[in-house]
Amino acid sequence: MKKITLVFLLIVVQTFAQTEDEKQIRQIYDAALENGEAYNWLNYLSNRIGGRLSGSVQAQQAVDYTKRQMDSLGLDRVWLQPVMVPKWVRGTPEFAYMETNPGVTTNLPICALGGSVPTYGRGVKANVIEVHSIDELKTLGKEKISGKIVFFNRPMDPAKVNTFEAYSGAVDQRGRGAAEAGKYEALGVIVRSMNLRQDDYPHAGGMNYGDIPEAEKVPAAAISTNGADLLSATLKLNPNTQFFFKLNCKQLEDVESYNVIGEIKGSTNPDEIIVVGGHLDSWDLGDGSHDDGAGCVQSMEVLRILKKTGYKPKRTIRAVLFMNEENGLRGGRKYAEIAKDANENHVFALESDSGGFTPRGFSFDASDEKIARVQNWSKLFEPYYIHMFVKGFSGADISPLKNDKIVLAGLRPDSQRYFDHHHAENDTFEHVNRRELELGAGAMTSLVYLFDKYGIE
Amino acid sequence: MKKITLVFLLIVVQTFAQTEDEKQIRQIYDAALENGEAYNWLNYLSNRIGGRLSGSVQAQQAVDYTKRQMDSLGLDRVWLQPVMVPKWVRGTPEFAYMETNPGVTTNLPICALGGSVPTYGRGVKANVIEVHSIDELKTLGKEKISGKIVFFNRPMDPAKVNTFEAYSGAVDQRGRGAAEAGKYEALGVIVRSMNLRQDDYPHAGGMNYGDIPEAEKVPAAAISTNGADLLSATLKLNPNTQFFFKLNCKQLEDVESYNVIGEIKGSTNPDEIIVVGGHLDSWDLGDGSHDDGAGCVQSMEVLRILKKTGYKPKRTIRAVLFMNEENGLRGGRKYAEIAKDANENHVFALESDSGGFTPRGFSFDASDEKIARVQNWSKLFEPYYIHMFVKGFSGADISPLKNDKIVLAGLRPDSQRYFDHHHAENDTFEHVNRRELELGAGAMTSLVYLFDKYGIE
Repeated sequence: MKKITLVFLLIVVQTFAQTEDEKQIRQIYDAALENGEAYNWLNYLSNRIGGRLSGSVQAQQAVDYTKRQMDSLGLDRVWLQPVMVPKWVRGTPEFAYMETNPGVTTNLPICALGGSVPTYGRGVKANVIEVHSIDELKTLGKEKISGKIVFFNRPMDPAKVNTFEAYSGAVDQRGRGAAEAGKYEALGVIVRSMNLRQDDYPHAGGMNYGDIPEAEKVPAAAISTNGADLLSATLKLNPNTQFFFKLNCKQLEDVESYNVIGEIKGSTNPDEIIVVGGHLDSWDLGDGSHDDGAGCVQSMEVLRILKKTGYKPKRTIRAVLFMNEENGLRGGRKYAEIAKDANENHVFALESDSGGFTPRGFSFDASDEKIARVQNWSKLFEPYYIHMFVKGFSGADISPLKNDKIVLAGLRPDSQRYFDHHHAENDTFEHVNRRELELGAGAMTSLVYLFDKYGIE
Repeated sequence: MKKITLVFLLIVVQTFAQTEDEKQIRQIYDAALENGEAYNWLNYLSNRIGGRLSGSVQAQQAVDYTKRQMDSLGLDRVWLQPVMVPKWVRGTPEFAYMETNPGVTTNLPICALGGSVPTYGRGVKANVIEVHSIDELKTLGKEKISGKIVFFNRPMDPAKVNTFEAYSGAVDQRGRGAAEAGKYEALGVIVRSMNLRQDDYPHAGGMNYGDIPEAEKVPAAAISTNGADLLSATLKLNPNTQFFFKLNCKQLEDVESYNVIGEIKGSTNPDEIIVVGGHLDSWDLGDGSHDDGAGCVQSMEVLRILKKTGYKPKRTIRAVLFMNEENGLRGGRKYAEIAKDANENHVFALESDSGGFTPRGFSFDASDEKIARVQNWSKLFEPYYIHMFVKGFSGADISPLKNDKIVLAGLRPDSQRYFDHHHAENDTFEHVNRRELELGAGAMTSLVYLFDKYGIE
């Protein structure tokens, strides 16, 4: 009889707890959807400030603006964390054309890849060799490549339903293409934009020369998907087509910039730190609304909603707007370095850096056991159409925090439209839907709330 | 020992079947994403033809175009099914303004609601009474309403995560507002657009006078959400603000139109019919890309993909492009009537009429037992991020097919952006993402494939 009573009580307690959580999460979503601030903040970041490449005036304006906004939220502490960042500037003009016959030219939309050297002098003009992989360079060898412009034209695979997989499968061309082509004495590199759509936007993004001596670095640019198809078709008709491009980009000295941090102090476990973040820098062509203005304003919104709903966290909760994710990851590294030096105990970090689209769930970088525990909460998210609780990559900025103990997580929004805008001129505010952005903030706040309340041990 | 062997065999068979299905569904998605036709068809429907209100030239062009396209797919039969449809025309001009003081006017964006009578003579000008529900009319009574324009201004609830719920909670104002306000001798009705966004687009949509005598019908228009807020704020400052609107719409005689039907004959169970469909008509303000050009081209794509992948259906599979969903449902009713008269055995019907956005799953209108059987397939959809297999409304056009036996289903795309465009000038092709549309076609084809292969009994 006693045993039966005990079972009964346990069920009552669990049902009650469930109801409390359901209620809190509903309040969180109401705060996000009815009176959200994320969209207004993003409007300012995108339309009043614009693209925020590390070291730029706009990056500094974004630091000042987001600090001011966090100052107004009544947090326990808001501060700037200094970090030296690389300053690469695009310069103007940059342009390209193909020349099918002497004097017969067609302009093609290109942009320098971040980190590229310029085309010194009057630009580079040469014959083109089209390849579809870095491996193919080896097969062709120096004989076929030397003195030419290498045109990497392997498209993202449209059959991949998760577009991030399609991106991973193609982005080596952008990241390492120039370094590899340089080994075979190519004069320059043109890479098909990482874009699943056919359009005229060249997509920027980082590239890396590795440890190549300065003199051996070849300039690298992205070409729009339509431009790539036109160039490829033209080369088939006339393999002697010449390609010309001019880049005026430059790597300047490192400059000081900042991570922007706001914090609500934990009431009972203040030494256990939960981080929610995005990166404040962006590429320079668009205004960085999806990448990653969205993640920044969502992270700020997490703190605003927790305050607004009157929730008093047990643990310390920080929104961190990281600087320099795009071309250095200096902000993420600096944050982790300082946390380590101060012996801070980070228990959970959640990043939003996959666009402000309808959230589908979360990916977790942690032990299977810990992920299984988090998955216990998934039922609470079903009314909000959050279905994915999967093992996977979390986010670049929080990755330096990784250790055996911390749970790293990434918001996983619907990925279909992300690469239409990624790093391009059309990553702009009007392509962010207010509700989709707000639903992301609601999902993030709910997960932070659960993690704060229950921990993971 | 014998028993153990049996169990072992059963597992092997099931695993093999699973693998076959996985392979077929992968092929279906490849066909949708790599060489899909849906987007091209929609481009033509939207940009070459445009809005397709029942009885319009464009509706007839859409009938001709889609029949021609289905003719080219190598189906077993393509035909037009005649149906008489209502012909309501908007007429021009239609416009509105508010007058805060004599001669001080501000234009406001409105559009006639479908089925409305015109504002006879020079238009309607009167004082405005703002209400938030049909119930409120009763409280106010004839004394407060007579001689005025009733302004229904209850917004869709932004806290509803599923925007269709927010729509259901507000659309009675549009559907029955004029009929109810007429009872209290209102002179006209203005309804806040069914839109969760703040913008300047008035959203059309059907309304119904019920059995009110012609003379008592009052004209009804939608006003944009920004316009509604401006009017409401103005009325608070100056309750004597007058509102003027002019509508030139007209209900003409019914005209003949068509459902467009394409069919692949079943190999072993040809008498069991599976329908996949959308509606070919649309409102007239935009080009009807999401509502419901998307559903039509996805339905055609189901047949194309089945042919393309070499799948030979056991059952007969029909794509039906229904006419007149928006203001009559005549096509859906006619199709069901003819099916009944011919003693056709419809076993499954799937409609796509919620926009061409990323599919999240399906809703099913069937017995719990049947839904449970369908849910057994849900694992197969997980690699494609299809998570929802829920009980719920399927689709208007297929609803007349309902009986105890048939399974009705609706594609459930992400709903966040649907009402930004629904029935408005901005329901246009550029707001459809190719991949999102194609993923819907992939999901629909996969479900049709499974239903055809396994049935539900």
